[in-house]
Amino acid sequence: MINWLEEKLCALNVTSSMNQSEGFTRLGYSVEEKQAHAQFIKIANELGMQTSGDEAGNQWAVWKVDEQAPTIGLGSHLDTVYNGGGYDGVAGVLCALAAVKTLQEKQITPKKNIAIICFASEESARFSVSTLGSKAVSGELNKQAIETISDQDGKTIKQAMEQSGLNWETVQQAERTETDLEQFLELHIEQGKILEDQGLDIGIVHGIARPIRLIVRSEGMANHTGTTPMNNRQDALVAIAPLITFVEEEASKMNERGGANIVATISVANVKPNAMNMIPGEVELGIDIRSTDNELKQELFDSINEFCKDVERKRDVAITNTTLVKDASVQLDKDMQDKLSAVSKSLGFKTISMDSGAGHDVMNMALKWPSGLIFIPSHKGISHHPDEFTETKDLANGTKVIAAYLESEVVG
Amino acid sequence: MINWLEEKLCALNVTSSMNQSEGFTRLGYSVEEKQAHAQFIKIANELGMQTSGDEAGNQWAVWKVDEQAPTIGLGSHLDTVYNGGGYDGVAGVLCALAAVKTLQEKQITPKKNIAIICFASEESARFSVSTLGSKAVSGELNKQAIETISDQDGKTIKQAMEQSGLNWETVQQAERTETDLEQFLELHIEQGKILEDQGLDIGIVHGIARPIRLIVRSEGMANHTGTTPMNNRQDALVAIAPLITFVEEEASKMNERGGANIVATISVANVKPNAMNMIPGEVELGIDIRSTDNELKQELFDSINEFCKDVERKRDVAITNTTLVKDASVQLDKDMQDKLSAVSKSLGFKTISMDSGAGHDVMNMALKWPSGLIFIPSHKGISHHPDEFTETKDLANGTKVIAAYLESEVVG
Repeated sequence: MINWLEEKLCALNVTSSMNQSEGFTRLGYSVEEKQAHAQFIKIANELGMQTSGDEAGNQWAVWKVDEQAPTIGLGSHLDTVYNGGGYDGVAGVLCALAAVKTLQEKQITPKKNIAIICFASEESARFSVSTLGSKAVSGELNKQAIETISDQDGKTIKQAMEQSGLNWETVQQAERTETDLEQFLELHIEQGKILEDQGLDIGIVHGIARPIRLIVRSEGMANHTGTTPMNNRQDALVAIAPLITFVEEEASKMNERGGANIVATISVANVKPNAMNMIPGEVELGIDIRSTDNELKQELFDSINEFCKDVERKRDVAITNTTLVKDASVQLDKDMQDKLSAVSKSLGFKTISMDSGAGHDVMNMALKWPSGLIFIPSHKGISHHPDEFTETKDLANGTKVIAAYLESEVVG
Repeated sequence: MINWLEEKLCALNVTSSMNQSEGFTRLGYSVEEKQAHAQFIKIANELGMQTSGDEAGNQWAVWKVDEQAPTIGLGSHLDTVYNGGGYDGVAGVLCALAAVKTLQEKQITPKKNIAIICFASEESARFSVSTLGSKAVSGELNKQAIETISDQDGKTIKQAMEQSGLNWETVQQAERTETDLEQFLELHIEQGKILEDQGLDIGIVHGIARPIRLIVRSEGMANHTGTTPMNNRQDALVAIAPLITFVEEEASKMNERGGANIVATISVANVKPNAMNMIPGEVELGIDIRSTDNELKQELFDSINEFCKDVERKRDVAITNTTLVKDASVQLDKDMQDKLSAVSKSLGFKTISMDSGAGHDVMNMALKWPSGLIFIPSHKGISHHPDEFTETKDLANGTKVIAAYLESEVVG
């Protein structure tokens, strides 16, 4: 199985070696994502699964045993951020395929169907909104709200989907009914250091910290850098720059209180006109706030708005804050958590219950179906970076937990 | 003349109306710049001037009276920044053409040749280096140093020049000898508010504040915004953000001392990966420092380097500072200043002697030939912006000063 995992890990990353200094760039609804889906189809076919694409660009592979039997959903995604790693998303798809292979090698005849889903465009790297594919499947996709969001090249989600061969009119038909799936299970790399630091093998996730995301837009006046005196400027960057320090200090202070943790990041900054001899006339800062505690997120969100009002009072700029995302954090199915923990421990793995600081496709699926999430270790917690790494033994451990859990669910 | 100026102002801006909400975008060595040069050729031909392009993409128009006589150079540029105004550069070319027209209408037969030059790529908006065309003419173009500098689309100066039909190998052959020109005179909009605020008509410039420009690069570690605790980050943006406030405060403090003024701007900011769910792993800030006092520029430059070393000591980031430009400020020809002032005052214009906070083509020409620079008012001092505006009467005033100065130089 170790060799198979390593071979298929490369295949799903459309590469012959995982050692890539620039990492992998497979944006949602890109040609590169499609190439990875093609590899998924190839592997699923080798396992005798039936494959099909849905209206939102998700790729399904089904081990169908009985049209009337319930279907257990597994899966994750194959898209990445810019210069991301080869494990975020891929690990979940790979271990699901490997678990099916395990059951087949044990010659188990399941009494339920097993579906593995590659969700499209999980990352928000391209369009600032995440998990488009799983939102569509769970009926959470608000098409109108996202229609005009565009990528760095000015291409909208709608255009990108249509270029990848989908029909914008029918995207929402990717939604599945409650009875289409019985439950959903995702495996993902932790993207943090808790498992590694504590020498643990498996994390069973109970809650997912969904983000508040906002854009702070500071508007001043572009003018010539050489001829505009210091005391007669409306520099949009100078005005808003202290917010960068404020957000970091405020989040750190909130963590010192104890209780639930919060993380907050100014991750995006766009300056216009961004030319050497022009005073910045407009600056957009993108802020990402996460905690499993919704009140904590709201408190920091409010502080940021207050801070911006204060900047407007003191500086000759106009500030507009736009909320992109403000979702309540998600709790996963308690019964599944208990079963997964028991299975993992029975296999001899050091197992803990933990939170997820990152969003995953499962958070959408959990709104409709009983859902679970398994974490395996990330080396040094590095993720969304070419150095992202998870050992093959950890992929094998994750596979064993999924396979054993499936076995307990489909045999009987 | 008023109608002619308004008509040709539009022509040189390749537009039928100066009222453009997005302004004008004619980057150096672009198709748009070339279209403006074509309009220049058309107008010069109407005035019976001989036109020719040189090896660096500058466009020359000569009123040739005698092969053996000296040649007076006039001119400015037709390229703009992104979404710039229609007067920066254009005013100088237009008034030079109008001055020739004035002499012709007065049926003056000059005893010297008059050459009007449209210098290519004066703005640094595209390539971060300015005045490429006039550098080439005055022999100041260091081809090796700029060969690999690229624009936002990754196109190098060399590629841009070759795409516009030039030969990179022969670019430096655009250099003219000392005897090719007798003197050089540029007219430019002030791009500041001194003339307007004081109700003045004409500024005669004695010194040009050339910039120090540097790139400050802060390198941390890109990582997932949701899974990386606040106390375990190497956020390149949080680390360097206080520099933005520091530069503004430091320059303001230096101005409070009295003596020469200084302006300093963080005008460029590029964040990588610049994605919502990624901690900034790398930030580049572009800084522009200007003063006619070279020591003052150096003092702020040193303070910025010290500040960056301090950030490195306190934060887990690596900072690299790269100096792009560090040129001594330029003094213009004293004799020409005196003559221009006398001519301007004799025409009844309220005239002052002043500094230039912006660089202009004349600063390169002044290194080889006696050179002068005339300022006319900019409305509200707005420049490099769609709202840039200079009244037609001020264009006419500038024309009169050039024409009268030329007359005093070529008749006799």
